[in-house]
Amino acid sequence: MPRYLRITPELPPPRAYDAAIGAGALTRLAELVRDAAPAARYALITDDVVLELHTERVCEELRGAGLEVQLYSFPAGEPYKTRETWSYLCDRMSADGLGRDSCVIAMGGGVVGDVGGFVAATYLRGVQCVQVPTTLLSMLDASIGGKTGVDTEYGKNLVGSFHQPRLVVMDPTVVWTQEYADMIAGSAEAVKHGAIMDAEYLAWIDENAGALRECDTDVLTQLVVCSVERKSEVVQRDPYEQGERAILNFGHTVAHALELATHYSMSHGHAVAIGMVAEAGVGERLGVTEAGTSDRLRTSLERLGLPTRIPEDISAERVAELAAGDKKSRAGRLRCVLLERVGCVAQPTAAEWTWDLGDRLASLL
Amino acid sequence: MPRYLRITPELPPPRAYDAAIGAGALTRLAELVRDAAPAARYALITDDVVLELHTERVCEELRGAGLEVQLYSFPAGEPYKTRETWSYLCDRMSADGLGRDSCVIAMGGGVVGDVGGFVAATYLRGVQCVQVPTTLLSMLDASIGGKTGVDTEYGKNLVGSFHQPRLVVMDPTVVWTQEYADMIAGSAEAVKHGAIMDAEYLAWIDENAGALRECDTDVLTQLVVCSVERKSEVVQRDPYEQGERAILNFGHTVAHALELATHYSMSHGHAVAIGMVAEAGVGERLGVTEAGTSDRLRTSLERLGLPTRIPEDISAERVAELAAGDKKSRAGRLRCVLLERVGCVAQPTAAEWTWDLGDRLASLL
Repeated sequence: MPRYLRITPELPPPRAYDAAIGAGALTRLAELVRDAAPAARYALITDDVVLELHTERVCEELRGAGLEVQLYSFPAGEPYKTRETWSYLCDRMSADGLGRDSCVIAMGGGVVGDVGGFVAATYLRGVQCVQVPTTLLSMLDASIGGKTGVDTEYGKNLVGSFHQPRLVVMDPTVVWTQEYADMIAGSAEAVKHGAIMDAEYLAWIDENAGALRECDTDVLTQLVVCSVERKSEVVQRDPYEQGERAILNFGHTVAHALELATHYSMSHGHAVAIGMVAEAGVGERLGVTEAGTSDRLRTSLERLGLPTRIPEDISAERVAELAAGDKKSRAGRLRCVLLERVGCVAQPTAAEWTWDLGDRLASLL
Repeated sequence: MPRYLRITPELPPPRAYDAAIGAGALTRLAELVRDAAPAARYALITDDVVLELHTERVCEELRGAGLEVQLYSFPAGEPYKTRETWSYLCDRMSADGLGRDSCVIAMGGGVVGDVGGFVAATYLRGVQCVQVPTTLLSMLDASIGGKTGVDTEYGKNLVGSFHQPRLVVMDPTVVWTQEYADMIAGSAEAVKHGAIMDAEYLAWIDENAGALRECDTDVLTQLVVCSVERKSEVVQRDPYEQGERAILNFGHTVAHALELATHYSMSHGHAVAIGMVAEAGVGERLGVTEAGTSDRLRTSLERLGLPTRIPEDISAERVAELAAGDKKSRAGRLRCVLLERVGCVAQPTAAEWTWDLGDRLASLL
């Protein structure tokens, strides 16, 4: 009989972190970072588009405030959310001799946040990270909750890890520098937060759709605050996505399939908008979701100028096939979050948050 | 002023895991794994040498016991402890459709444990892991504590993460299939555990050096049990190496430099043996370490047939230069664990475990 030695790691107490949200928050970045993530050196990671728009200036400001900052950038876009970009960044940091007492500041959209976060999670087995999202999508969604990762040829986010930031800084005024269509696409994630958790929030989005489309600062700020509040409720309870956090994947089973089918030429926000309407429809056809939910979501999304139908050249069979390869599937079976009604997800059992669709997705779309 | 939203992740309670140690433990692997790490599918990761020696047979046994197992191997040796090997393994698992309900079983020496552990840490943002070390070195050291990672051209373990296994299974009889010199080299880590924590354990190793060199099963088993006990005391208190765990790096500042200088042709055990004697000498010269400690360690190591002197063709300046690039250095300054005497490390202050040598290492060697 073998001898058993039991090893019980004493984990450090959970570390709370702040999301600092407000017009002008970026001008106070040095002070915020120094406070929440003191470090000997900072690796400021960005893409080449955000570099010119914001990061070069921010880098100067941080240096002016006395922080020792190394600036690293890579080409913008999902095709660069790869292990190669991650390797390149880690190697640059090694070449510059950054030690464990360093901190990554990831400044940009979701790609920069995910790659920069994965660098922070793995460089020297993990250094501190500050997230500075500059797109509406990443403010509403990706920058909160500690998910990091990169894509592989087999799909999105197939390698990565959970690594909570020390601080998230969001200045809603910077989204004005995004392409307008991209900015609006980001609001699909806010609709999702309403759809899965809070019917009143969805109603508020409907009422303010016009102001959002005109980039009203107060309404944008309120949108970011509300979505971060909703999302953080969930990720606080389930930081490692072992249960409830799965509800944030509503719309995403179909969305990831659409992104794959279009080789990522469809934006994530558009894919999520279409995916939510499709998955609400699946729930209705299964008798799980209240009738009319899909149309209700379609109306909200169309008010924001977002697409809601699967493009005609992508068949239901193709969507189902690509969705079955998604990492949310377990043991090769296709799983999906379904709504009970607007504001509330349907739970198959008390312990489960996703529904096993087996191989039925194509017939339900 | 920005608005602050505080996010406090509720971490799951720390998960204890067992190290099952004993002659014949491997024959009970299916039962042990099924118990500690139930999973829909298992990715059995190994290298091509261990594959022929053990893993093919073990794979058949696991399948015979009803586990669904995919077998993956890569070429043996430190040169394959790379991001490329890690990518290859993740991609193979993606191609085979392994989901989040999978478990990695890493079977082999330290390289397999580190790469396989890093795959488990990052595949789909983390799956379960079982470590099955097959070399004396990895039983004594690497398989316990959750360190994972790969080397880059800039040095060893420069990317990786902390990922605790669900189970470690050690069958000391399998070390007989190692090259004899490699097996004995592994015992350097046991000497280290004595040197930093337990003078009595070091005395026991001295007494049993003859039996160890003859591969006596009971003595080997006792050595593994004692070292795992000593090491787990430390890693339990400091799972993320934020403090005390640094003491396990005794001898390793010089060791890593020697491995780099020899392009890893020097084995890790030999490098650690030489490193410990060298670093004990540094401590003596600084007046921190009791006089005679370096000689005492040299005697213990030579009894085991291990080298204790820096090869003549590697200058002290070269060792210092390579050590300064090590990730244990902070803000570019060279840091080192020093002993107070055999069985006890010297602490510079209550909060620090490593000594700042600045740029003095070369002059102290």
